[in-house]
Amino acid sequence: MRWRADISYDGTGFSGWATQPGLRTVQEELETWLTRILRLEEPARLVCAGRTDSGVHARGQVVHLDLPDDTLTDPTKLLRRLQRVLHTDLVVTDLTLAPPGFDARFSAVWRRYVYRLADGERPPDPLLRAQVTHWRHRVDLDTVNEAATTLLGLRDFGAFCRRRAGATTIRTLLDLVGHRVATGPAAGVIELTVRADAFCHSMVRSLVGGLVAVGTGQRDRDWLVEVTRRAARDTGVLVMPAQGLTLEEVGYPADDELAHRARESRTRRELSPT
Amino acid sequence: MRWRADISYDGTGFSGWATQPGLRTVQEELETWLTRILRLEEPARLVCAGRTDSGVHARGQVVHLDLPDDTLTDPTKLLRRLQRVLHTDLVVTDLTLAPPGFDARFSAVWRRYVYRLADGERPPDPLLRAQVTHWRHRVDLDTVNEAATTLLGLRDFGAFCRRRAGATTIRTLLDLVGHRVATGPAAGVIELTVRADAFCHSMVRSLVGGLVAVGTGQRDRDWLVEVTRRAARDTGVLVMPAQGLTLEEVGYPADDELAHRARESRTRRELSPT
Repeated sequence: MRWRADISYDGTGFSGWATQPGLRTVQEELETWLTRILRLEEPARLVCAGRTDSGVHARGQVVHLDLPDDTLTDPTKLLRRLQRVLHTDLVVTDLTLAPPGFDARFSAVWRRYVYRLADGERPPDPLLRAQVTHWRHRVDLDTVNEAATTLLGLRDFGAFCRRRAGATTIRTLLDLVGHRVATGPAAGVIELTVRADAFCHSMVRSLVGGLVAVGTGQRDRDWLVEVTRRAARDTGVLVMPAQGLTLEEVGYPADDELAHRARESRTRRELSPT
Repeated sequence: MRWRADISYDGTGFSGWATQPGLRTVQEELETWLTRILRLEEPARLVCAGRTDSGVHARGQVVHLDLPDDTLTDPTKLLRRLQRVLHTDLVVTDLTLAPPGFDARFSAVWRRYVYRLADGERPPDPLLRAQVTHWRHRVDLDTVNEAATTLLGLRDFGAFCRRRAGATTIRTLLDLVGHRVATGPAAGVIELTVRADAFCHSMVRSLVGGLVAVGTGQRDRDWLVEVTRRAARDTGVLVMPAQGLTLEEVGYPADDELAHRARESRTRRELSPT
């Protein structure tokens, strides 16, 4: 039986999602507790929708977990146990039986990230500092949004990706748009929404780095267009700090489309990280 | 010359506002840097609008500082210096010449605090956990708000205060109302707004503790009315954890009322902490 868990974390204290020996990671911490609470003979193995890097946050991460049929009779009880034992920087918000054909990674049709930026001399609100990057130069949002439209759609994002052998860097960028928060504690903070069918490694932070270079006037729009045409990683594009980035939401198709979508994605990006 | 500074801080790493030997406090950290940057012969002395306890946050704390006439010729430069040298959990957001008669503490006509509470089994969003208290029992907001109205107005809040010799505990409670955040990352979080002319020690957290006891059904409204009539601290009222509390804003009268207000407050609460 396959289970779906929705999770949120403050990435500050984690060396990213994926298990790495000797480091604290989200995957390792969740798998350890699941194995322990459920007294599993084989360690629990989680598959996630978006493998976040060290320091990147998530508010809408989705994972799946396969368990022998009779292991989990009361998911609500397990959810409560997890909510009590995990540190406060990692929260399982929901735990449900996955519909047939569901795959947290390959069934997903899009991932939505938000990059938060406080531009100008004044540092961000101290209570939001863990999730907002401070950028001392002013960013012109109109310039950013104008440049952003040129990046939308299906293309090779190789210039913005750390390449992996055999992995495609072709993606469909669905949204790339910035706005300034109008009210509340985050007033004035720039939120850049980046939504795509999937992302290759460092892609969101590089896209934001490219846009910020244009928005601060350090580079112009032609430079960005030029960079986008390149097939390989461009070292002139800054990879923005992890701290400002949050995986906000993962989109899935209707239940009867899940299996088809998973087959389709697996074929297309077999060797590619999401 | 008197200067006004507006400051924000994440109280997690501070032992409150007021200087205490051997502890990291907001006052001590600000005074040390001001003295150092301005090369003052006498250490800088700050007076604040609301002396927050250990762990309490502020987003709209106001302080004043008296300096010899020619010390500070370029306040913007000092503001930038402070924004660069201070840790990211303490931000000076504004620094201006104070109008005549201004006193950060005694000119204030009200202080507005917000207490944030995530009720129920599910812990708060990890990225907001530093400023939200997790309360495992569900709180009925209608019950809270109905009970809250009975506390409004001018009365002796002795039952909710840690008493100080010679200090009055008579205050005017202007607002006491809760709502649930509707959207965004904090969706579902209860925000209790508490506004009064001034507060005595532990008053906000005790008021919230009394309301939470009623809102969870642990106590009834008659109990709260009964408690309120007592002149001395009631140990049956829980002082809520500091972490959920933020000083959001301080209100001042029009400039030509500042000096009058300061004289009036000083007379009325000479020995009383704000």
